[in-house]
Amino acid sequence: MNGKFIVVEGLEGAGKTTAINKVLETLKTHGISDIETTREPGGTPLAEQMRALVKEGHPDEPLTDMAELLLLYAARIQLVDNVIKPALNRGAVVVGDRHDMSSQAYQGGGRGFDKALMQSLRNTVLGDFRPDFTIYMDIDPELGLSRARARGELDRIEQMKLEFFQRTRERYLELAAAEEHVAIIDASQSIEDVARDIQSALEQWLNHAG
Amino acid sequence: MNGKFIVVEGLEGAGKTTAINKVLETLKTHGISDIETTREPGGTPLAEQMRALVKEGHPDEPLTDMAELLLLYAARIQLVDNVIKPALNRGAVVVGDRHDMSSQAYQGGGRGFDKALMQSLRNTVLGDFRPDFTIYMDIDPELGLSRARARGELDRIEQMKLEFFQRTRERYLELAAAEEHVAIIDASQSIEDVARDIQSALEQWLNHAG
Repeated sequence: MNGKFIVVEGLEGAGKTTAINKVLETLKTHGISDIETTREPGGTPLAEQMRALVKEGHPDEPLTDMAELLLLYAARIQLVDNVIKPALNRGAVVVGDRHDMSSQAYQGGGRGFDKALMQSLRNTVLGDFRPDFTIYMDIDPELGLSRARARGELDRIEQMKLEFFQRTRERYLELAAAEEHVAIIDASQSIEDVARDIQSALEQWLNHAG
Repeated sequence: MNGKFIVVEGLEGAGKTTAINKVLETLKTHGISDIETTREPGGTPLAEQMRALVKEGHPDEPLTDMAELLLLYAARIQLVDNVIKPALNRGAVVVGDRHDMSSQAYQGGGRGFDKALMQSLRNTVLGDFRPDFTIYMDIDPELGLSRARARGELDRIEQMKLEFFQRTRERYLELAAAEEHVAIIDASQSIEDVARDIQSALEQWLNHAG
């Protein structure tokens, strides 16, 4: 496996799409042409069907927190085994819109699954597969949600209470501080400042990793 | 939780449907009227959608063994939390066409996931929830598959090689011997003899449990 897996993480309305575009632009400027983008949950035909179950649920039946967690990991291993690892093996750079840190933050922090369970599930499903570099777009949930709301309808998860997103952000910050190769970007800044910080963090990592 | 959860287990072609009908008849004869039947994977709107992913897969993408395992547990916890436990809480007898022993046998024995992983996943998802009584319909896979084949088309799992089902049967027998409250029925017998053995095993348990 010679490629690199770069992941963009963050709450709703943190500006992940803008961040990903900046990452792609910076990689191209750096002379990297074999780039693949993914999103989670989803990114393969089967994983997109699992995503739909998580995002839409069912009008007559609550999706339990545990089933949600298992579906997210089922979708993740489909994407990792069928898309990400083959791309890395041919030397591509894969840019992911969310990966495992989302589950650790939303399901671990937000829903309250305990850390030991979350780590055990991650290790069982993914083994030692981890991103090479993570850009965490940090934002206050109130600001992020107001941005997401302005974009249109909120889905099942985005309709959760503010405290859910506050717990999620706390766990994100905790993980970002504890794990290696994570850049924390202040996503409340202007688009220009955010773009500059992302480019700078990514170039620093590329020069170090390359 | 005052009800009872009775599960019928076994390979394809072992005669689970006939066995379930005999169980229902025996329960009614015993004066039990609040009976609910379930099937796994499935049995709720969301769990049936997960079942479809497992049974049908996708023409352009292999379903990984790990994603299959996680989907089966996601479907199971939907059924347990939304159907089985509420029924048991109101005092019903739930008769299940498959439950966790199927995963232990097919995914653990057949696919080869190790026992520690299988037990850990079961405990993580189900806690200490277990059936009260299990009827395991034991059959040689060659005979079972020839019966299943005669019924019509085989699905993704039923198309596996014979050795897969032999490993599955071995694990079934091992579990049936090790766990409490499991009756092993020789499903190669005539329908009459099978029915008699099921009735006898169930009545013995009912008289003991009741």
